[in-house]
Amino acid sequence: MRVAVPLNKCYRLINHGPVTLVSAAANGQTNVMAAAWTMPLDFDPPKIAVVIGAGDLTRSLIDASRELVVQVPPRGLAEQTDAVGSCTGRLVDKWLKFGLSSEPGAVVNAPLVTGCVAWLECRMVDEPSVEQRYDLLIAEVVAAWADDAVYSVDETTVRLRDDVPEHLRAFHHVAGGAYVADGQVFSVR
Amino acid sequence: MRVAVPLNKCYRLINHGPVTLVSAAANGQTNVMAAAWTMPLDFDPPKIAVVIGAGDLTRSLIDASRELVVQVPPRGLAEQTDAVGSCTGRLVDKWLKFGLSSEPGAVVNAPLVTGCVAWLECRMVDEPSVEQRYDLLIAEVVAAWADDAVYSVDETTVRLRDDVPEHLRAFHHVAGGAYVADGQVFSVR
Repeated sequence: MRVAVPLNKCYRLINHGPVTLVSAAANGQTNVMAAAWTMPLDFDPPKIAVVIGAGDLTRSLIDASRELVVQVPPRGLAEQTDAVGSCTGRLVDKWLKFGLSSEPGAVVNAPLVTGCVAWLECRMVDEPSVEQRYDLLIAEVVAAWADDAVYSVDETTVRLRDDVPEHLRAFHHVAGGAYVADGQVFSVR
Repeated sequence: MRVAVPLNKCYRLINHGPVTLVSAAANGQTNVMAAAWTMPLDFDPPKIAVVIGAGDLTRSLIDASRELVVQVPPRGLAEQTDAVGSCTGRLVDKWLKFGLSSEPGAVVNAPLVTGCVAWLECRMVDEPSVEQRYDLLIAEVVAAWADDAVYSVDETTVRLRDDVPEHLRAFHHVAGGAYVADGQVFSVR
């Protein structure tokens, strides 16, 4: 079940560096792409940094709306994740072609990709110099959600469960369609 | 064995979002800290982005030298990684206290932490506005190395091996001393 995550702990949804899906909407059009270069940037108010190429359709939708959703696909969506990262929404309707569906977010107009396990609704922070020089987008998280089968969530915090079934685990892009799956959760304190 | 990695493929050493160790040297002093908020930023010339708090000793050494090494510790160094991320080099000699040793890099003066499985020698790119506002450092990778037991390396490319022993696998920080280990490598193409 998708449950709300306290904003000041939402960095934990992507702290482990999984591959993400980025969705955006503008002018009646939506798109989704894969992004491996994503990381938290601040705790509270929460910010993230993500690299989105200047030529990507998703980038043009973000540029127009100044909104995006960054979400964590589980291993069960690995083929779709790789596929939406390997073609352009300018030529195909990725939702239709890869059987992905979406649901509305609470704050932004960008859609949440159904079947993901964590979602960060974001509004862009204006940093035009790094946007232009590095395709580096800085955004504030304005709403956050997690699948409570994957993350244990209460009113004050969120943590990754240590008993997540393999098909619900996050995964990480190495290169060229090769990924590494999340293994064992362990604690050293 | 530590072998040189082609610079235009070195993003693959950290593309999967593992926790990293950041080392720096200036004015006769060296330090090492943990950093989870690290990602590639460009392929060629390769750049990375990493968040290092303004109050950290390592940050002051980076500010003074404009150099750093970002390296990937294996699971066998998980306790030391967590430990150097949980105290300050202003109060303890982390190398001595946690039994870490180092070796010289090829290009920068910042030391390479012995026992890691990938190393990126970096020189800072001047982006003072994001450095000051977000503690976000942008750096160019000027030399890269990998342990060839973990990565398969040749003159043109590098890839993560799919048979890495557990103690040599990278791991990812969730929060508060909880980590997730690298699991299975898989390909979807």
